[in-house]
Amino acid sequence: MALKLASILGSFGNRSDRYMTGGYASDVSLEGLFDSVTRIPELSGVELVGTWQLTADSVAEVREHLARTGLQPVSVIPDLFATQTWGKGSFAAHDAGVRRAAVDYVNEMAVLARAIDCPCVCIWPGQDGYDYPFQADYAQAFDWFAEGIRACAEAAPDVRFALEYKPKEPRNRSFLSTADRSTLFVKAIGLPNVGVTLDVGHALEAYESAAESVALLQREGLLAHVHLNDNYRLWDDDMIFGSVHPVELLEFVYWLRRTSYDGWCSFDQYPYREDPVRAIGEGAKWFRALEAIVEASDDDELDQLLRRGDAAEATAVVRRLLLGGGGASVDAIGAVGGRVEGGA
Amino acid sequence: MALKLASILGSFGNRSDRYMTGGYASDVSLEGLFDSVTRIPELSGVELVGTWQLTADSVAEVREHLARTGLQPVSVIPDLFATQTWGKGSFAAHDAGVRRAAVDYVNEMAVLARAIDCPCVCIWPGQDGYDYPFQADYAQAFDWFAEGIRACAEAAPDVRFALEYKPKEPRNRSFLSTADRSTLFVKAIGLPNVGVTLDVGHALEAYESAAESVALLQREGLLAHVHLNDNYRLWDDDMIFGSVHPVELLEFVYWLRRTSYDGWCSFDQYPYREDPVRAIGEGAKWFRALEAIVEASDDDELDQLLRRGDAAEATAVVRRLLLGGGGASVDAIGAVGGRVEGGA
Amino acid sequence: MALKLASILGSFGNRSDRYMTGGYASDVSLEGLFDSVTRIPELSGVELVGTWQLTADSVAEVREHLARTGLQPVSVIPDLFATQTWGKGSFAAHDAGVRRAAVDYVNEMAVLARAIDCPCVCIWPGQDGYDYPFQADYAQAFDWFAEGIRACAEAAPDVRFALEYKPKEPRNRSFLSTADRSTLFVKAIGLPNVGVTLDVGHALEAYESAAESVALLQREGLLAHVHLNDNYRLWDDDMIFGSVHPVELLEFVYWLRRTSYDGWCSFDQYPYREDPVRAIGEGAKWFRALEAIVEASDDDELDQLLRRGDAAEATAVVRRLLLGGGGASVDAIGAVGGRVEGGA
Amino acid sequence: MALKLASILGSFGNRSDRYMTGGYASDVSLEGLFDSVTRIPELSGVELVGTWQLTADSVAEVREHLARTGLQPVSVIPDLFATQTWGKGSFAAHDAGVRRAAVDYVNEMAVLARAIDCPCVCIWPGQDGYDYPFQADYAQAFDWFAEGIRACAEAAPDVRFALEYKPKEPRNRSFLSTADRSTLFVKAIGLPNVGVTLDVGHALEAYESAAESVALLQREGLLAHVHLNDNYRLWDDDMIFGSVHPVELLEFVYWLRRTSYDGWCSFDQYPYREDPVRAIGEGAKWFRALEAIVEASDDDELDQLLRRGDAAEATAVVRRLLLGGGGASVDAIGAVGGRVEGGA
Repeated sequence: MALKLASILGSFGNRSDRYMTGGYASDVSLEGLFDSVTRIPELSGVELVGTWQLTADSVAEVREHLARTGLQPVSVIPDLFATQTWGKGSFAAHDAGVRRAAVDYVNEMAVLARAIDCPCVCIWPGQDGYDYPFQADYAQAFDWFAEGIRACAEAAPDVRFALEYKPKEPRNRSFLSTADRSTLFVKAIGLPNVGVTLDVGHALEAYESAAESVALLQREGLLAHVHLNDNYRLWDDDMIFGSVHPVELLEFVYWLRRTSYDGWCSFDQYPYREDPVRAIGEGAKWFRALEAIVEASDDDELDQLLRRGDAAEATAVVRRLLLGGGGASVDAIGAVGGRVEGGA
Repeated sequence: MALKLASILGSFGNRSDRYMTGGYASDVSLEGLFDSVTRIPELSGVELVGTWQLTADSVAEVREHLARTGLQPVSVIPDLFATQTWGKGSFAAHDAGVRRAAVDYVNEMAVLARAIDCPCVCIWPGQDGYDYPFQADYAQAFDWFAEGIRACAEAAPDVRFALEYKPKEPRNRSFLSTADRSTLFVKAIGLPNVGVTLDVGHALEAYESAAESVALLQREGLLAHVHLNDNYRLWDDDMIFGSVHPVELLEFVYWLRRTSYDGWCSFDQYPYREDPVRAIGEGAKWFRALEAIVEASDDDELDQLLRRGDAAEATAVVRRLLLGGGGASVDAIGAVGGRVEGGA
Repeated sequence: MALKLASILGSFGNRSDRYMTGGYASDVSLEGLFDSVTRIPELSGVELVGTWQLTADSVAEVREHLARTGLQPVSVIPDLFATQTWGKGSFAAHDAGVRRAAVDYVNEMAVLARAIDCPCVCIWPGQDGYDYPFQADYAQAFDWFAEGIRACAEAAPDVRFALEYKPKEPRNRSFLSTADRSTLFVKAIGLPNVGVTLDVGHALEAYESAAESVALLQREGLLAHVHLNDNYRLWDDDMIFGSVHPVELLEFVYWLRRTSYDGWCSFDQYPYREDPVRAIGEGAKWFRALEAIVEASDDDELDQLLRRGDAAEATAVVRRLLLGGGGASVDAIGAVGGRVEGGA
Repeated sequence: MALKLASILGSFGNRSDRYMTGGYASDVSLEGLFDSVTRIPELSGVELVGTWQLTADSVAEVREHLARTGLQPVSVIPDLFATQTWGKGSFAAHDAGVRRAAVDYVNEMAVLARAIDCPCVCIWPGQDGYDYPFQADYAQAFDWFAEGIRACAEAAPDVRFALEYKPKEPRNRSFLSTADRSTLFVKAIGLPNVGVTLDVGHALEAYESAAESVALLQREGLLAHVHLNDNYRLWDDDMIFGSVHPVELLEFVYWLRRTSYDGWCSFDQYPYREDPVRAIGEGAKWFRALEAIVEASDDDELDQLLRRGDAAEATAVVRRLLLGGGGASVDAIGAVGGRVEGGA
């Protein structure tokens, strides 16, 4: 069964960076953003960012566009990164007033999420971190962050809060940095409606195997949401899913399926210089292609492969799965002696 | 009060790599290793590696050398990385026989640790990991590893087991990869005599702030042992402590003291081409110098600094602490308006 | 003799990123920017960016501010990165019209540089690069870039063109990526008024030793301009100079002096969340402190140090230079045998 | 026409690291090494390392094995890394005697290369570099290295010397670090029989696009030899070619063909824990598979692709080339407006 695909809505709007402050393209109306999503047939859902698209004032309009397009509201991402209030942090800010404001604001966003029938609030606390040595009281920040999220999750027990980790950017170092740090936060919070958003590019950037992160988050029952993109491992380049690391992304899709993930997979590409419909559409084609490969593979064969842990065989199987044909022949060469790592 | 300094004993012996397989120097007798340590007055303890120095056969000799030199046995590091049995893993190996052998072997090492009055067994499972996509069942490996350690820790409740994490090498990717992964393992194991070894170079390599790792491990009461070295962030270069990153290492020492760490700090330098006594001796001088700076600093001032989270002020304080003089003057410039992050 | 310090003027204005598109602070008038620079006594020069500060319309006003403040115009940085025309490249764009426009525009900027008595045009071709595999004809791009710069340099032989390299950002991969690539470009261009801008953070990001880059650029007579900042090696964090890597920056300053660099050293910090005057002022204090250490050191001693290539001795000398006292004692330990790498 | 494939002979022997000093397998006789190569039908050549396989004493035996197996001698790699003499450098060592010894030794190796009818000496100066700040006189080292190579190349004008770059390991930082540094060295040496060995994993580790490195080295006529493997970008993991980065390796093979490279492509995998015949055999299958994809592609289509520089189209073409089918459909989506970067 195919996984449900969505996209962050704002990726279809203008994209900027610290140099091209006015953006590489031009601003797009809310209507235009929704229309763009409908041009990619693989997508059936959207994620909305607070200030940029979903506010108390825009709720009615958003509901109309959802109804009009038939797109599902997948998650709401409160703006904890694009407004000066959060410039030095939100849930873990040094300033107590800012910390309270973060809780209040996310509480409001949970109400708006409910108002558009969206079951998930994705918390990306991009400004919660630090830039310099001797700039943070790490233990205090951990507690502040956990307390803030707990307050929000207690206030809206019917909403699922998905914490999105990322090692850096916009801070040089984030508090919510890795899959394991996220798990520790969720355990410290101790509420059933708090889980984790795994952005596959953030995992690559953290030198995680994204497949391993899926496996361990699912082992804890914590994988709540997934973001899709690709990069060159050292930065959150937010490139087209599949364009650089199809092998590891194939394994990632395999583990989503192996662990019966049935949530949304949502594109978080940032096509600075590309037409968003084409770039995200191409990511969707890559995802469906890798998913089809996993679907068509022999579950038992792959399970046996993992049990053996044989590097050459694993690579041969990947080659056969991706390129077609010939994967088995590596075994013929190595048929004599000692080939199976886990052998008697 | 000064922290207790030790060194891994083997660092004073020959050092090799995959090219210089015969080593950059020559082999050194057990007696010679101990003698070398005594030449560095800052050191009062040693760590011993299983096959290389501590075996059932060598226990008596090791005891003699400890008595002769007055050095404390700080930790015993079972050899889970240097014998072909563990070539593809130990506690998390695909082969069930190897997994059992790892438990048996570490149990024996705990007995030997007791025999030399050493309170700590430092587990560095260097071969437990994977190299290729589709080579590991990550969830299974997590359980195997936790089960194995639990068995050892239950068998020797009087011994403290300190799990040493490292993102990679000798495997391309380790299961016990980061401080947070270690915490998750310890929580899964659920025994009071299991903690974590923080190797500061491994933290740097994992893009951790080593200071943050101290803070969070201590928050959980898990910091059991510390290894000292430095590197260029991308690999475990095992360089002289302080030689590259004195700022972050100053913050690291500060957090050891702030959290009242009273265990051992043990050098894990690997001086490929250097005289070990000079290289490790120089690391000890750097450590004592940074420690003296922390000792001489004003606790309240640094505490206030962390509360404010002001980047320019933090950098000015670091400059004053390291270089002496002038650190305060940054404040004069910025005295007008909005300087304190957590202000108001 | 102290090196001349300047700053990029725009660093004192608003700073934004792709999330905080409106900026972490607020916009500052040209007058305000100049006034800010004057608050840092160490600075005597400024760099101006095309569209942001220096255009045909603003020349007169810029001249007034320079006269008023007494600041020297150090370099002019044409805007090849902040206007949509250059969104997919400038000198090496696929579009021939864009390539011609880049030459025309830089020619105009050379005229404006002359009009404000600025001897240097710093070319940072941030958009010249590529993001994806199979997106560039690398050999063609090399030639286009060299031809474009040659045309500009021929048109203004009295102006020095300083090519600023950077491995990535805003493109995922830049054509002008490293010090060595820059040297190859300059050799291909073959004109005496083309040199290189070394941004020390870009060097760190490229896993260069910035000191080595100085040495090799000066060996070719190509070091034309210097930018100052610091980072965590993996990204152009544009942090306060000295805040993270004082050891390597000390060596960098040493090599500037050893090779008799007499050009400008200009701050290219980007203080997202900090007061620019305080952050850049603190960088200036770090620079002057490291420079004073180099000035006070014994040239012959450091020269001998480099001749010996002894790691422990080098680290001890760094420790003494930075922290004061004690550096020599490492020699005492190692006085017996084989300490000098280059020994007989 | 298929490219000629070879392998470094020693990869079929024992493999060790600094922990598993005795190796993950067992030693293999020279006869056994040659026999292993013959089990991989794609291979027709071998590279021999000095001390490990080719010495004055072993020349006759090597000639016999070459004759017996019909394998071509592709290159000779002098041992400048595995003997203590070179522990702190060879051509650029601080010690003048060592520098002379390096020249003498490589001269001898050129004679031995001739004696086995091998046209190429591959110089990998692994120990020429530095580990610490203030440990090297970079300008001096550059000259020493160039002088040494020049002396060797002048002494054997009929032999091609191929300089193999690598950013680090075994030194923390190498002098011969990147493709561009190599080009600068070759230009400084100024002899026609000196070129460059491109190890594709070393390029990945240096954040080079390997395809770009091929393009630029070929632009200068300098690509003399190629080594094949793969890694996770941060270290020379020497993994199975194709196992991690098939997209970039496809582009790499494309550029070899586009620039009419007709030299050898030689596997430099280091299968620590794998059966070498299976691991290198699998790499050969990946290479032939990617080569077949390039062969079957439409040259004009790919040339047009590079001229347009369209990211989504490039990714779609890669998807079609690797996975088969569907690549064109991205164009359908984006048919309206502004899709071609280089468009009129």
